[in-house]
Amino acid sequence: MTQTHANDHILVADIGGTNTRVALAKDATLIPSTIRRFRNSAYSGLTPVIHEYLSKEKAVKIAGACVAAAGPVHDDVAEMTNLDWTIDKPSLAQASGAQTVAILNDLQAQGHALGFLDQASLRPIITGAIPKANATKLVIGVGTGFNAAPIFETPQGRLVTPSECGHINLPVHNDEQRRLSDFIKCKHGFAGVEEALSGRGLERVYEWVSGESGETQLKSAADIMASVELKNDPQALKTIQVFSDILATAASNLALIHLPLGGIYLVGGVTRAIAPYLRANGFEKAFTDKGRFSDFLEDFPVQVVEDDYAALTGCAHHLAALSHL
Amino acid sequence: MTQTHANDHILVADIGGTNTRVALAKDATLIPSTIRRFRNSAYSGLTPVIHEYLSKEKAVKIAGACVAAAGPVHDDVAEMTNLDWTIDKPSLAQASGAQTVAILNDLQAQGHALGFLDQASLRPIITGAIPKANATKLVIGVGTGFNAAPIFETPQGRLVTPSECGHINLPVHNDEQRRLSDFIKCKHGFAGVEEALSGRGLERVYEWVSGESGETQLKSAADIMASVELKNDPQALKTIQVFSDILATAASNLALIHLPLGGIYLVGGVTRAIAPYLRANGFEKAFTDKGRFSDFLEDFPVQVVEDDYAALTGCAHHLAALSHL
Repeated sequence: MTQTHANDHILVADIGGTNTRVALAKDATLIPSTIRRFRNSAYSGLTPVIHEYLSKEKAVKIAGACVAAAGPVHDDVAEMTNLDWTIDKPSLAQASGAQTVAILNDLQAQGHALGFLDQASLRPIITGAIPKANATKLVIGVGTGFNAAPIFETPQGRLVTPSECGHINLPVHNDEQRRLSDFIKCKHGFAGVEEALSGRGLERVYEWVSGESGETQLKSAADIMASVELKNDPQALKTIQVFSDILATAASNLALIHLPLGGIYLVGGVTRAIAPYLRANGFEKAFTDKGRFSDFLEDFPVQVVEDDYAALTGCAHHLAALSHL
Repeated sequence: MTQTHANDHILVADIGGTNTRVALAKDATLIPSTIRRFRNSAYSGLTPVIHEYLSKEKAVKIAGACVAAAGPVHDDVAEMTNLDWTIDKPSLAQASGAQTVAILNDLQAQGHALGFLDQASLRPIITGAIPKANATKLVIGVGTGFNAAPIFETPQGRLVTPSECGHINLPVHNDEQRRLSDFIKCKHGFAGVEEALSGRGLERVYEWVSGESGETQLKSAADIMASVELKNDPQALKTIQVFSDILATAASNLALIHLPLGGIYLVGGVTRAIAPYLRANGFEKAFTDKGRFSDFLEDFPVQVVEDDYAALTGCAHHLAALSHL
């Protein structure tokens, strides 16, 4: 951390619900040794985080800065759920001293990272088809919330568009999903995708699964995943089965909507936690269960991105592409 | 039809399930007097249609040609449902003599027409918000089938991407939609959006509505719409109510997915037929019924495109934009 950096560095940051990761990149490449983590609750906003980061990194000049925020971005302003920070371009430019700045939502940042990740960090889930070069790709994120970002490869570069698809109606593909949807609607008024496909959604599915078997129990997402690994709780194993089915149905709907022949990339903390169990729980069968379009769904390869720094990589590449335009 | 044309004309065609419309455009503007209609069943493919058209139009040279096809387009080849025509760029170039050619699906063509249509041909359905300039737009088509196309306005021009969203799971938002979904699943194996939201879907909804009231009846889409206009059949009136609700739910899901702050544009024969009844059937209420995202949904203005030649206009503008790149 005592090294000095040349003038052409890019500052990148990934603002999650709890922590913010900040790092430097050079020529669009993330410098792993510069990654530092900050606990959001200890700071009044992004500006003091950046100031503290830069004071320790001793980077004399930042040419560009790009931030990924786990929340909606409208008119270049990011809104964070449960975090009273204003994240906009003028304050980012001022805090970093950068001339070129950009603000993305976290899923868009993940989209900009595709093609620049280590192949070893991609876990294959559905492998029947080869991702088509220069075709549309799709990132689907399950973590604190649910969202997705389509990646369009245009002759002028990559376009990654925002979405709020975690708030569409939860798909109801079979009787089991119907009863779960009823349960969510009864408790929360509206059965949106994110109410099932998220960290708290996992806990809700567990609550419903245990209730269906006679006795309602509550368990944290971390404990559910621990039980799945230890195979010591049938309700947790059933929860993963139900969750995997819903994720597959939601993902295949998004595949038909965006046609990502370049591949579907599952990201986020919950996805990474359940990734080892998706194949055994019949993710592919549920994904391709689409009536006469079932064969067509086999054209979309699905992988899980296990690189926890992918959003930082995406920020670096997005800003580099912006600077080259 | 005896006029002669200068060398810089564009040939545009809109290939539907039954008819193909062909016309000329100049400087991206459709020339209405040149529109001619051909019955698909009388021709072995698009080439003889174009040959016949050009022989009568006496246009000595076609600089560009763009075709909109009511079917999926993959790798610049359009597949038509129920029509044994091969529509690809080489054959389009050869038939028309054009150097620059393009093949779109019909919804993409409608997307390229936005901003170039007569305001009088747009029927407002939800008017709370003003379409934002340069924001994403969304075309949703209900006719022989169901599909949509998002329109992204990039610094380098308009990007209209393909979709197969008529084949995602039919949303199930309330008990009524649940019973309808069951009915469709029982009859067709898979309850996709298009099985309810299309011409044949309208007939299916009627069948289900009448069955729910005690006696299953069948009625053609044209007869259902005639009964709605005459108000002489309560089942037909109920059918329009159910259909409008499902369309609103499907459209608001697509709004959350694509964030079309530039407006949602409903197109297609079925949409145009039911357009006069959408407001009275509570389309807006159903569209904004999305839990804590209900207020957000009010940001998306919804209009029906009543210009039957919009796809031709879109073809002309798409080709003009391509030529200017």
